[in-house]
Amino acid sequence: MSKKYVYSFGAKNAEGKADMKELLGGKGANLAEMCLMGLPVPAGLTITTECCTDYYANDCQLPKGLMDEVWKGMEFVEKDMGMKYGDAENPLLMSARSGSRGSMPGMMDTVLNIGLCSATLPGIIKKTDNPRFVYDSYRRLIMMYADVVMDKAEGLDKGIRRQLDDMLEHYKEEKGYEGDIELTADDMKTLAEKFKAKVKEVMGTDFPDDPKVQLEGAIKAVFKSWNGKKAVSYRRIENIPDDWGTAVNIQAMVFGNMGDTSATGVGFTRDPAVGTKVFYGEWLPNAQGEDVVAGIRTPNPLNSDTKNEQNKHLPSLQELWPNLYKELDDTCMRLETEYKDMLDIEFTIQEGKLYMLQCRVGKSTGTAALKMAMDMMNEKLIDEKTAVTRVKPEQLDELLHPICDPKIEATAKLLCKGLPAGPGAAVGKVVFSSEDAVEWTRRGEKVLLVRKETNPEDVDGMRVADGILTSLGGMTSHAALVARGWGKCCIVGAGVLDVQEDKKVAYVKGTGIVIKEGDILTLNGTKGHAYEGALKLMESSENPQFQEFMKIVDKYRTMGVRTNAETAEDALLAKSFGAEGIGLFRTEHMFYGKGAEAPLFVLRKMILAGSDEERQKAIDELEPFVKKDMKETLIAMDGLPVTFRLLDPPLHEFAPQTAENQKQLADALGITVEDVVNRVQDLHEINPMMGHRGVRLGITYPAITEMQVRALFEATAELMKDGKSPKPEIMVPVTIGGRELRITKVSVDKIHEEVCKKFGVKIEYLYGTMIEIPRACFLAESMAKEAEFFSFGTNDLTQMTYGFSRDDASVFLPEYVDKGILDKDPFQTIDPKGVGELITMACERGRKGRPNLKVGICGEQGGDPKSVEFCYLNGLNYVSCSPYRVPIARLAAAQAAIKHGK
Amino acid sequence: MSKKYVYSFGAKNAEGKADMKELLGGKGANLAEMCLMGLPVPAGLTITTECCTDYYANDCQLPKGLMDEVWKGMEFVEKDMGMKYGDAENPLLMSARSGSRGSMPGMMDTVLNIGLCSATLPGIIKKTDNPRFVYDSYRRLIMMYADVVMDKAEGLDKGIRRQLDDMLEHYKEEKGYEGDIELTADDMKTLAEKFKAKVKEVMGTDFPDDPKVQLEGAIKAVFKSWNGKKAVSYRRIENIPDDWGTAVNIQAMVFGNMGDTSATGVGFTRDPAVGTKVFYGEWLPNAQGEDVVAGIRTPNPLNSDTKNEQNKHLPSLQELWPNLYKELDDTCMRLETEYKDMLDIEFTIQEGKLYMLQCRVGKSTGTAALKMAMDMMNEKLIDEKTAVTRVKPEQLDELLHPICDPKIEATAKLLCKGLPAGPGAAVGKVVFSSEDAVEWTRRGEKVLLVRKETNPEDVDGMRVADGILTSLGGMTSHAALVARGWGKCCIVGAGVLDVQEDKKVAYVKGTGIVIKEGDILTLNGTKGHAYEGALKLMESSENPQFQEFMKIVDKYRTMGVRTNAETAEDALLAKSFGAEGIGLFRTEHMFYGKGAEAPLFVLRKMILAGSDEERQKAIDELEPFVKKDMKETLIAMDGLPVTFRLLDPPLHEFAPQTAENQKQLADALGITVEDVVNRVQDLHEINPMMGHRGVRLGITYPAITEMQVRALFEATAELMKDGKSPKPEIMVPVTIGGRELRITKVSVDKIHEEVCKKFGVKIEYLYGTMIEIPRACFLAESMAKEAEFFSFGTNDLTQMTYGFSRDDASVFLPEYVDKGILDKDPFQTIDPKGVGELITMACERGRKGRPNLKVGICGEQGGDPKSVEFCYLNGLNYVSCSPYRVPIARLAAAQAAIKHGK
Repeated sequence: MSKKYVYSFGAKNAEGKADMKELLGGKGANLAEMCLMGLPVPAGLTITTECCTDYYANDCQLPKGLMDEVWKGMEFVEKDMGMKYGDAENPLLMSARSGSRGSMPGMMDTVLNIGLCSATLPGIIKKTDNPRFVYDSYRRLIMMYADVVMDKAEGLDKGIRRQLDDMLEHYKEEKGYEGDIELTADDMKTLAEKFKAKVKEVMGTDFPDDPKVQLEGAIKAVFKSWNGKKAVSYRRIENIPDDWGTAVNIQAMVFGNMGDTSATGVGFTRDPAVGTKVFYGEWLPNAQGEDVVAGIRTPNPLNSDTKNEQNKHLPSLQELWPNLYKELDDTCMRLETEYKDMLDIEFTIQEGKLYMLQCRVGKSTGTAALKMAMDMMNEKLIDEKTAVTRVKPEQLDELLHPICDPKIEATAKLLCKGLPAGPGAAVGKVVFSSEDAVEWTRRGEKVLLVRKETNPEDVDGMRVADGILTSLGGMTSHAALVARGWGKCCIVGAGVLDVQEDKKVAYVKGTGIVIKEGDILTLNGTKGHAYEGALKLMESSENPQFQEFMKIVDKYRTMGVRTNAETAEDALLAKSFGAEGIGLFRTEHMFYGKGAEAPLFVLRKMILAGSDEERQKAIDELEPFVKKDMKETLIAMDGLPVTFRLLDPPLHEFAPQTAENQKQLADALGITVEDVVNRVQDLHEINPMMGHRGVRLGITYPAITEMQVRALFEATAELMKDGKSPKPEIMVPVTIGGRELRITKVSVDKIHEEVCKKFGVKIEYLYGTMIEIPRACFLAESMAKEAEFFSFGTNDLTQMTYGFSRDDASVFLPEYVDKGILDKDPFQTIDPKGVGELITMACERGRKGRPNLKVGICGEQGGDPKSVEFCYLNGLNYVSCSPYRVPIARLAAAQAAIKHGK
Repeated sequence: MSKKYVYSFGAKNAEGKADMKELLGGKGANLAEMCLMGLPVPAGLTITTECCTDYYANDCQLPKGLMDEVWKGMEFVEKDMGMKYGDAENPLLMSARSGSRGSMPGMMDTVLNIGLCSATLPGIIKKTDNPRFVYDSYRRLIMMYADVVMDKAEGLDKGIRRQLDDMLEHYKEEKGYEGDIELTADDMKTLAEKFKAKVKEVMGTDFPDDPKVQLEGAIKAVFKSWNGKKAVSYRRIENIPDDWGTAVNIQAMVFGNMGDTSATGVGFTRDPAVGTKVFYGEWLPNAQGEDVVAGIRTPNPLNSDTKNEQNKHLPSLQELWPNLYKELDDTCMRLETEYKDMLDIEFTIQEGKLYMLQCRVGKSTGTAALKMAMDMMNEKLIDEKTAVTRVKPEQLDELLHPICDPKIEATAKLLCKGLPAGPGAAVGKVVFSSEDAVEWTRRGEKVLLVRKETNPEDVDGMRVADGILTSLGGMTSHAALVARGWGKCCIVGAGVLDVQEDKKVAYVKGTGIVIKEGDILTLNGTKGHAYEGALKLMESSENPQFQEFMKIVDKYRTMGVRTNAETAEDALLAKSFGAEGIGLFRTEHMFYGKGAEAPLFVLRKMILAGSDEERQKAIDELEPFVKKDMKETLIAMDGLPVTFRLLDPPLHEFAPQTAENQKQLADALGITVEDVVNRVQDLHEINPMMGHRGVRLGITYPAITEMQVRALFEATAELMKDGKSPKPEIMVPVTIGGRELRITKVSVDKIHEEVCKKFGVKIEYLYGTMIEIPRACFLAESMAKEAEFFSFGTNDLTQMTYGFSRDDASVFLPEYVDKGILDKDPFQTIDPKGVGELITMACERGRKGRPNLKVGICGEQGGDPKSVEFCYLNGLNYVSCSPYRVPIARLAAAQAAIKHGK
């Protein structure tokens, strides 16, 4: 094979570089880059992602010749580090870590201290003169290796890790120790032997004592962990393709736990929570890297900027070792200049010498991402276009989301304080497990996930929870990292809580307060405070930097963004978020919302009318309500286009179901309750989604359409008389071809003429249709001859194209996504196959029928960044989405224009 | 304009000919052809169908210059007839009749006696010396003209015709007359004057006295009637495109009512009911053509072959005027040789001279069509291919449909006898109006339409009724013609019945028996007998000519025909009809049908299982039932392929709904009734058609799939051991892409291996999928990589493509067809747009994925001739339909192959 699978780095040189992420993974490419920059990096090898793909294609066998290439590369590593792998005198130890193109923190497996074995133990003890450290490392290797390589990678899942953990706990109990710190070198040695025996007993094979076997096993295990359950689940959420694969980085070990002059830490070149330009990080003396992120010990602050309530008593690196701190700080500044982005770094200090273990572009909150993008632009580090691409559209969400009303918060009952790990506020019911979070959310509850600490197994629950609260962990703990990536409200390290997950309770120590499952709390993630009960939340006040950013965004955006609305209030909110019109106004709302009793009652009279006369009477009664609603909306959006969709839902949705309502209606109609019940039953449909709705109602009862159209034109005429500039658009739903549009247009034209005459004005309007039935896409050319605009109703279109009822699909849809039958939930993101092809076809055919056809989208997917990009590529004129997603759609549209720009 | 709109015929010459039907309409082309053959045809002009299209395109204005062309053509007519239009001395009278490409009997308007006016009346009276005849013609012209030209064509619908009819009735009452025959010439004259005054009063304008105005008005009115309600409705049913347009034939009037040497009649060159080679027809002395078909007088027989119970006392034409009869008979024989088909002719004898007024290919029953095709083939008049195309596939229906069991019929209570106008037997509830027939049928009733006589307004009701019974009319009456065209059971002229449609009763005269709405009768249309109550019907015995015909059909057929079946009995019936396999076997049946209690109960245990163990137990219990069912079907179809569809419907369809069933199940599962109710509620879906069904169930509960597959393979293996040749095919329903197929295939492969091993046999089978969700059509290429065959489930595919729930669409679908929004019901015939495009695409993409992919269809449309043609054009390997439609599909497939043949 002529494929090169192994790339070396170290000795201020490397075979790879930063832009080789696809092949080397992010970690491997960045390690190479740091070497090229001359930074102190322990030498190592990167085994390519291609090798991972080949490994899976080859039935989980390492490609032939790979290990030969590895041993060859190891000679370079040994030379740079001045040590020898497996050597009795001067043994080199290695780590094996995953590294995919995109960051997947903690989702794959790692093995440390590889190379410790009976042959190398004496040499390293001699060299370090620290038998406790060596045996500690050894027992850690056994635990990790047995778990990751022997148990999980082999798909055995015998739970060896838990059994070894239990042994460790029992051992400490027997000895009366309170913490690991009390374990002596002999204890560690004894434990290592006990562990090896247990491994043999449970797994049926020995823990390998051959360093070569250890390294090969570790490489395989990292590849294997690419398809581990949590990695697969994370990829789903983060939209990382399964076929990217991971690289494996095998790197010389350096030890932050080699004594009092050793340490380990992590940092960000700017504050990832708020975006301020300070070197932000944490470290732990005499510790291994995992200890910092695990959240078990409270880490020390890096510097004065990083001090907070939890850690202010601990010495900072800046205070303790100013020279090392300066070296680190300088390194970080160089890195930021090189990468032109905020970086997340890991370092280790081994016996007074600094090593950079990792650098990568850091994750941050949306607030921070936006601030950093604007600051870096102002610092001339990046240009405008780059600034626009630096904020993920989804991240804007958190800038728009509610916060606690400070006045109310001041008097609320504070339960506990923790670290402000994710901004914004959240109200919800407490649950204590990821599974419960998923299940409660599925039934429509808003939940807060309360845990001691979180781990990668919890990501599904964290995803669905409105907020996260943990009793342990720091700002770089798993919970904080994940929540921040998603812009989710999160508090970590609320030490006053005693969370007992198995009992589903949390005690607020010293207060007698017990938080039980289902209790309602409010979290303020910006402050790190948790309150009893549901506090009133308020909109995030307008952020001037956000406004400035969105102005730049709009400079690059070419596609319109409108909003979907049900009320004039919705419309105003969306306008404040930059909506350029209403793409879908649902008149239905007036029959559902507060104060809807009167119109709903009249609507019911119309629905259950026994004769055309009765029906017409009810329709006439209904018109003023409809007109008022439409007029208010036109006023709210004065000068901007407002697309009114004609009545859409099947009528029986509005039919009275309770005995009381039926009685009331019977009296009003002068018929018996039995008659009402019979008429309601007549209306019942087996599959209402595909029943008598939308334009089908209008065809059967033209008077309903005429009433709506008259209300709209009269509202428009009155506003014109008042000097306003209403821009109404009429949208016909659920059409299957051009003829329904033609028939409906006859009524519309008639009423238009009547109203224009009556008011002496010339009303301009657009006439168009929803495209939400697959057949409509096929007939698009002839439909465009009747319609001036199309708006894709991708909710219904998805239902029909997949045969998925939104109301019922939750029984199997999550399983369809889990099992990889579908890449994503097609109700959230337009599936380019199926629905996507229909849209592309309808655009092409529609524009054939009418070259200047306006085309938009008003399904839920209109606010989904991936779908916005799809719409851009299909030449849509606008997307329309719910008010809170308007800025997201604006940013996504700008990014699409920059990415595919013309 | 250089367009030629007017074609003349007459004087043994013509500008048109028989193959110009598109331009001249069937009637016009055939009139021209008869002239070219030298037959005696009154001269006239045909105004083209193109003129009709231009008339509609031109906002219902006659094209400029048309009337000049007409007047020019009239000179030719005048010369041939030796009379002059509008002349005082020797006036020519004209008729104006419609004539479209396809026959639309009685659906459009006709005006006779055009040219009678104050200027021409004296001349014609002098010429005929028959003032009563002339004034009778005059008052008929006024009535017809006022109705057709002045009222209906203008869209006024003032009901002038009814008012004039009432005047006539009143006049007769005042005079004490019993029938029209007593009206004298003076009476007729008085009536004509009264009519003109009434017309002026009601319509606001005078009846035109100018012959030129009359003719132009009549031409316009005929064009206008192309879009009359009944014409449009008929076109829908008969699938005649709206844009064909009608020609107008203006032809010199000849009079069958000019006295005792005049007559009029209609005939068929062979018996249209049974196909025998006899000249078959009826005539009336001294009458106009309309009188024969109106069914008001019982017409005379043409010859001895045409005598029957009703007319045997009346003299035949053959007896009365043997020379004229011979001339007519010779003419008909010449025509049949010329046209090589059975013809339907109209003739008039005016004062001893024979005129041919019309000839066209006659409509017949399916039985007759088949016999005539076979006879003509044997007579060497036509070849095999032509014979195959002579029977409409739909017509085979009647050859397969049930007849009365003669033994039971012998003892049944006979209510009345009439003419056997449409073959086969029918049982149903009596209704007395077309509207009721439609409405009752819509609610699922089988009805018999009982009328005095039928008219074109009744076609909708006749269409839906299982049988038709009239008290008036002969074998060429409207009811008989229409029923025969549709192969529907029909009895006409049951004179013993006194049908009072307004009161919804019919009295059997002289018996005291009253037939009320809703009473159940049985009609034997082959004999013309009606019986009280529901008689047992039996299958039509096998017809040797039918078998011979189908053998020829299969010689030309290239596409396979299979059947859809739910039981082994279905399968056997279909095999007897020529099914070459089962294209869709629905295992669901065993849970619905008789004796289904046991499997249904076990199925319910499975559905409502509370744990995997409980479910597996129920599944194991279910397997023997499933296996038995599958084995019986494989035996029935031994050697032929049988496609088993995996369980398809949503589970809640099977859930127990009654308290008793719930109790029983609760006991069996050892849970409370409340638990059962809760689990049933959990299963409830809002749109079950798009819910948890088909492969989705298999993904969620793989054990269900595995059980079915094991049952099938074990049944197959056992049959192989018995020396049989089972050919099972596994079909996965409701798939949306290839991945579901891949996942399911893993289970299938596993079970296949197990069963093959257990029985020591090598089971061959095909693995495929339904294509019934729009997305599947888009993903067809990747699906074909997993599936060896596709079968289009066009029922579901239509539901999703249109967003039409079959269960609910009846509320609006008929209106959609009526209003022309849809050309046809897409659940009956594949719509080439939408569903058709999806099928074409899926075929292309599927064969890209697997070049030898087998493709079939198993939706209802698989037995629809138009759809079978569509399938042929798309290269499908087979169609599959219900047993009774198998011969229809075979014929349709053969006709498609002949039409588009390769």
